[in-house]
This record gives sequence, structure tokens and C-alpha cells, in this order.
Amino acid sequence: MSYEYSAKYVKQISRAVEQGENAYLKNEFENVHSADISLIMEGLNAEDCKYILELLDPEVGADVISDIEDDTRNNFLSLFTAEELSKYMDKTDSDDAADILNDLPVKVREEVIANMTNQEKVLYIVDLLHYEEDCAGGLMAKELVKANINWNVSQCIDEVRRQAKEVDKVYTVYVVDDHDILLGRISMKKLLIAAEDVNVSDLYQPEIAKVHSYQDEEEVAELMQHYDLEVIPVVNVQGRLLGRITIDDVVDVITEQAEKDQQAMSGISEDVEETDSLWAMARARLPWLIVGMSGGLLGANFLGGFEDELRLVPAMAFFIPLITATGGNVGIQSSTIVVQSLASGGFHGSSFNRYLRVLMVALLNGVTLSLLVYVFNFLFTDHDLAIVVSVALFSVIMIASFMGTITPIILDKLGINPALASGPFITTCNDLIGLGVYFSVAKVLLH
Amino acid sequence: MSYEYSAKYVKQISRAVEQGENAYLKNEFENVHSADISLIMEGLNAEDCKYILELLDPEVGADVISDIEDDTRNNFLSLFTAEELSKYMDKTDSDDAADILNDLPVKVREEVIANMTNQEKVLYIVDLLHYEEDCAGGLMAKELVKANINWNVSQCIDEVRRQAKEVDKVYTVYVVDDHDILLGRISMKKLLIAAEDVNVSDLYQPEIAKVHSYQDEEEVAELMQHYDLEVIPVVNVQGRLLGRITIDDVVDVITEQAEKDQQAMSGISEDVEETDSLWAMARARLPWLIVGMSGGLLGANFLGGFEDELRLVPAMAFFIPLITATGGNVGIQSSTIVVQSLASGGFHGSSFNRYLRVLMVALLNGVTLSLLVYVFNFLFTDHDLAIVVSVALFSVIMIASFMGTITPIILDKLGINPALASGPFITTCNDLIGLGVYFSVAKVLLH
Repeated sequence: MSYEYSAKYVKQISRAVEQGENAYLKNEFENVHSADISLIMEGLNAEDCKYILELLDPEVGADVISDIEDDTRNNFLSLFTAEELSKYMDKTDSDDAADILNDLPVKVREEVIANMTNQEKVLYIVDLLHYEEDCAGGLMAKELVKANINWNVSQCIDEVRRQAKEVDKVYTVYVVDDHDILLGRISMKKLLIAAEDVNVSDLYQPEIAKVHSYQDEEEVAELMQHYDLEVIPVVNVQGRLLGRITIDDVVDVITEQAEKDQQAMSGISEDVEETDSLWAMARARLPWLIVGMSGGLLGANFLGGFEDELRLVPAMAFFIPLITATGGNVGIQSSTIVVQSLASGGFHGSSFNRYLRVLMVALLNGVTLSLLVYVFNFLFTDHDLAIVVSVALFSVIMIASFMGTITPIILDKLGINPALASGPFITTCNDLIGLGVYFSVAKVLLH
Repeated sequence: MSYEYSAKYVKQISRAVEQGENAYLKNEFENVHSADISLIMEGLNAEDCKYILELLDPEVGADVISDIEDDTRNNFLSLFTAEELSKYMDKTDSDDAADILNDLPVKVREEVIANMTNQEKVLYIVDLLHYEEDCAGGLMAKELVKANINWNVSQCIDEVRRQAKEVDKVYTVYVVDDHDILLGRISMKKLLIAAEDVNVSDLYQPEIAKVHSYQDEEEVAELMQHYDLEVIPVVNVQGRLLGRITIDDVVDVITEQAEKDQQAMSGISEDVEETDSLWAMARARLPWLIVGMSGGLLGANFLGGFEDELRLVPAMAFFIPLITATGGNVGIQSSTIVVQSLASGGFHGSSFNRYLRVLMVALLNGVTLSLLVYVFNFLFTDHDLAIVVSVALFSVIMIASFMGTITPIILDKLGINPALASGPFITTCNDLIGLGVYFSVAKVLLH
């Protein structure tokens, strides 16, 4: 694919920077998409990035700065003066500019804004800086084309022409009243094929999907996905048009959310990437490892109470890994299904039915596995122990299914990411419950 | 949110269907988005769905059929005759129509196509049925607006007008030569603000991103995400324009892939949902549970070799859950990070550096956890055993990190979903390795 670069090529670019081969570099980056240039830069050091950026057309440079990953960007932006940065921010889309400025120290941010010459952009950015990054307001761009309800098509087209340079992708023209209240939209297609003297009020589509600036970014993503939208307008509480959110930013939200869920499922507590510092990576993993370890020590403590029994029947210890592993696997399977149902927008059918189904699936798997293990143990070990292990296994499967089902629902109700329930927490709990069940069953059946 | 419906409301609709309150139902569904009507239908039985569908405008009905989930759709489509279905297929976008027809028995599919009256649509659909569902060809729609390179703007606009009813969302006009070879595109914005007599050849943007019909859907998703595209043209090997893929379908691909990865991570082997049959749900879970169980039995067998040692020092058994759980947690954390790096398009830096970093993170965590456990054990148990447990724990962390790092890389090279490496397979392996290490260390240090 064109958007992967070999280490060899990146090294070649780096060498060209070292030797100041500007003509070669300019030629190499001509007609290359800004997203690809940013990708090459990921492999270079901050000084090289800055060197290349200054060779590029400022418009392209602004796009590159927007496209590059946060960590890399923060690294090399510190090499720029506020004046140099303001030159790029003048040409950056307001949503990206606000994100970039948000990551800078307040003093630098203020200096950059003070040095900007594009006054409309400054207003946009200052407005966007008010919003939290993970709400609709933090996701939107101010650049859009809007038309007054009292205009005609010809006036609309003039407005598109006027805004053409500012607004990169015009998906739709928003229709507002004199107070900027959003009334609806006109698609580019309709505008293109309509006669010039048709009134906007006769052409526009009312009742369109919109979001409020305070809505959570995941809500925005769900809504755009549900209605198959490529752009959505953002309004304030009065219904005034504030900006628009485009699908590319929402795709990033969806991808990030999936990554966060995966990390939650695997017990990594901060958003880390392979390129982060060693200590950051270790630290992100430690909390859940310590939870797991504490669980293990609790388990050791519990087993300590059975020292005499274990001395008498050491074979009881043999099946500890079987019991704990199966409990863990069953619990994670159950919770993942529930987490996905929660994510895809709730469930159908009543709660009672829901739990009944979980119970039945657990029953089917529990019976199958317990029988398999019983047959195996009956052939190779003591008959009494075979019964104990199978009864315990069955109970553990039932309990782990139940735990795996209710934990994500409870977490979700508490406002905690339910994906955590597929992670080390539930595994640790299931380990302990499994041990408890196993040794209780043994105590009842063996003595 | 407007796209969640209460069980109460769905029941109300169902009752209205029963009592044939057509006026109420028509009124209830007026101005409701097809995506929302499909959502309500998810909660109804097949007969009710059919009843409601027939009350709707056929255009809306066609959209509802496209929007509804596969399982629900297959259920109620079987109630329709081929003639009834063909009426809807005439009005459905070609990509959705092909997907729907692909799920029907061949005989029904042929009958539906034979009954369709929209001949252009028939050609589209027959063409699309050739492609695998998970490649670019299977994702594309045939509906698009294209212009000949020799036309002028006015001719382009006429073409948009002609196609306006067929093509729901016109993102862009594709420019082709006389042999339908894709040359570039013109954005709607450019078309709108250009003079009518400007030539297409002077206006169009050459060198645009495109995909080949055989490319994998995930490649398409990566590409569209990388270049922030809302639509991408699909060409054949000669470069002929075949169709276009829109971002809404790609968002679904991304979401499905994330779900599949989550399921792979939790050991669920088929794509199942909460609404599937009990046996389907149980069966999807069994394979990996049996793998885990077999691992548990192997572990039991292994521990059987240490029966005498366990009789002598039963305390050794106490720490089995600690060792296996920590190995599992560390392994899954490591593999998740690698899986995410693989998914986001490779890594930077050399392989050697990469492994060194993994080693260092493992070392940091290994030392921290082993020390913590040592201190705890030193206070509460036997000194020798404390050393054994900590040495074993440290070794297990190092090995599990290594396994968790290389397994996804190997799976990926073999063309298997690397997310499987964060699942029960690696946990089972780590359990066994953990036990092996623990008892080997014990044998060396205690005797």
C-alpha cells in the first residue's frame, strides 16, 4: 500500500535532509498527499521534520501538521517559534488548529493566536478552545457554508463561491434564519440542478439530524453511523448553528474507542502505544497486574486453609489450573457478548428472557465440558475426585457466566467502560470464586 | 437518543398491527427515518414486519429492508413472494440489493431478478453478484455520476440531473475517457461555481485515490481512513471505473472488524449476537473452552508428576493460581499492544529495538511484581518458598511477555487474525509454561 514506507526509504530521506539536498526533497514530496508526508515524518527526528516542513508549500505544511500523530507533533512543534506556528495555523482547519493549540503551553498558544493574520480563523479557534475535546463541540469545525432562508439559489451559489477557499469539502449548504437558527439543509446535488431563481425556502430539507455541542463524541459517532451521515451540524441550546462534524473525525473516534475497549479488556489502564516511553508502558500495565497479583495472593491464603487436605489428597491440586482457566474463559466470553450488545445500542426482549438465555447457554456448555472432563478423569484418576472436579467445573461455569453477564451491565450503569468487565478484574474474581467452589465441593463430597 | 425504542413502544406498535390500526401506524411512521423504522422492526415478529412494510411508501420500504439487520431481514423476507421482493429491489441501491439477494436461496434470487422492471438496476445487481462480499467489489455500489473528459460543465450538470433520482448522494463526479477508464474527479463544489462552458478537462483533478475490485475490505477501510475520504472509486485491472464505495459502508466494516477482534480476544469463534439461537451461541463458545480445558487437563497431568513433592510441601500448590493468572495477564497485555500496532499499520524502528523495548517493559514489571510478592511472602510464609515463588513469577512474566509479543506477529504472517493471540490460546499456553517454570524452579531451589 502506498501508505506504508520502508525503513530504508525513511533513512534515505533522513540522509537527504542531513546533506541539505533540497531539490531532491522538494521533488520527492511533490504531489504526495499530506497524510503520506506525515507518515514519513513519523520515522524522522524532530529537526528533520521541521526542515522538511519548511521546504513544503505552507498550505501542504499546515495539512501535514494536522495529519501527523499527536506525540510526534508535540515533539517537533516545540522547535518552532510562535510566529512560525501562526503562519501554519492561519491555513489549518479550525478543528485541527484548536486541537493542536490545545496541546501547547498556554503562553505559546496565546502568542500563536496573537500572531495570526487570518482574523476569521482566530475567532473560530478562540471559540473552539472553550469546548472539551471529547464532546461534539470539541470535534466540530467552524468552516461551513450556510444560506439564509430568504435567499434564492443564485445567492447560495455566490456564498459557496465566496467560501470556496475556506471550506475544503462542502458536503451540504445549511439553511438558517436571521438569527442563525438552523432550519435545514440543501444538498449540493439539489443546488446544482435547481434553477437560479428558485427560493431556498422552497428547496431546503427541514427536519435534519443534528447534535448539541455538549453531546458526547461517542453519541455523535453512534448517531452518524445509525443514519449513515457523512457530516452533521452542531447547534447550541437555542438551536443556533455552531459548526459541523465530518465523518473522518468520527471514524477516528470509533477506532480510538475500539482500541480503548481492547486495552480495557486486556488490563492496560492508560492509552499507550508502542512508541511511548518504557516507564509509561510499564506503568500502564502495572495496576491491573497488581490487582491480579493480589487476587493470586488471596487465593494462596485461601488454599492455605486446606493444607491438611492437600497433604492427604495432593491430586486435588492438579485440577486448580483447569478450574481457574475455565472460569476465566467462560467469564470473558459472556461479558464480551454483553459488552458488544451494550455498544450496539441495547438489547431487545425483556431482562428476564435475557438472563434465561444466558443461563441456558451456560447450562449447555457446562454440561458438555463437565461430561468431557468426567469421562477423561474417570479413565485416568480416582472416581471420587472425578465427580468432585466435574461438579465444581459445572458450578464454576454457571457462576462465571452469570458474573460475566451482570458485571458489564453494572459497570455500564455506573458510567464505567463495560469492556473492563472482560479484563483482569473478572478473571481475578472468577479465579477466587472457582477455588472457593472447587474446595467447597471437595469438602462436601470427599469427607 | 431517538434511535432507541422502549419495549413498551414496540409492544404498542405490535398491538396496533394485531388490531389492524392502519391509520395510526401510517401516522406513526410518517417522517420517521428508515433506519429508525428498521430498529422498531427488530423487536417485532416477521409477520408484523411484513404488515408494516406494506403500509409504507415502497421507496421507504426499500430503505427499511436495506437498513434492517441481516438475521431479522432473512426471517421476514421469506414471507414475501418473489414478485413482492422484486418491487422493493427495483428501488434499492445496487450494493444493498446484491447483499440482500446473496442471502436468499438461488431459486428465489433468480425469480426476484426476473421479476424486476428496472433494467439498469438488474444489470448492476447481476454484475455485483460476482464479487466476494468482503472485497472492494462486494462493497461497492454501481450508482454514480460520471462525466466524459470531452464534456463541458453544462453537460456534467445535465448528467447529474439525469442521474439525480438514481444516485442518492452525489459526492463527486468521476471523469472517464471514451473507454470508461477513470481519469479523475470533479468535486460538486467546483462544478457548482464553475462557468457552464468550462471544459471538464480543464477542471478535473487527476491522480485520485482508488481501489481495485479485488482488494480486501479492510485495505479499503485503511485507505479511506488514511486519506480522510467519504467516497472512493473502484476500478478493474484495466483501470475501468466499476463503482464507488461510500464511507458509511466502510464504517460498518471498521465496526465489524473491531467486534471480530474482541470476540477473537475472548475466545468466541463465530460471529454471534445475543439474538442468535441458544445452540449457535453455545457452539461458538465451545471450541476455545475445549482448548482451555485440554490445557487444564494437560496441566493436571503435569502436576501429577509432582504428587510426592506436593504431599511433602502442600504450600507449593497455594501459589499455582498466582503464577498462572499473572502469566495470562502479562501475555494478554503484551499481545494487545502488538495487535494494535499491527492494525494501525506497522511499527517504526527496527525489529531488534522493538524486542529490546518489550524486554525492558517486561523487566520493569517483572522486577516490581516479584519484589512485591517476595516481601509479602517473606512476611507470611516460608523463606525458601518465597524465593521460589518470586523467581518463578519473574521468569513467567518474562516468558509470557515474549510469547505475547511474538504470537500475534507469527499469526499475522500466517494470515490469521492476530487478535486471537490475546485470547484463550495464549492464556492456555502461558498457564502450562507457568506451571512448568514454577515447578522446575521449585525442584532446583528446594531440593
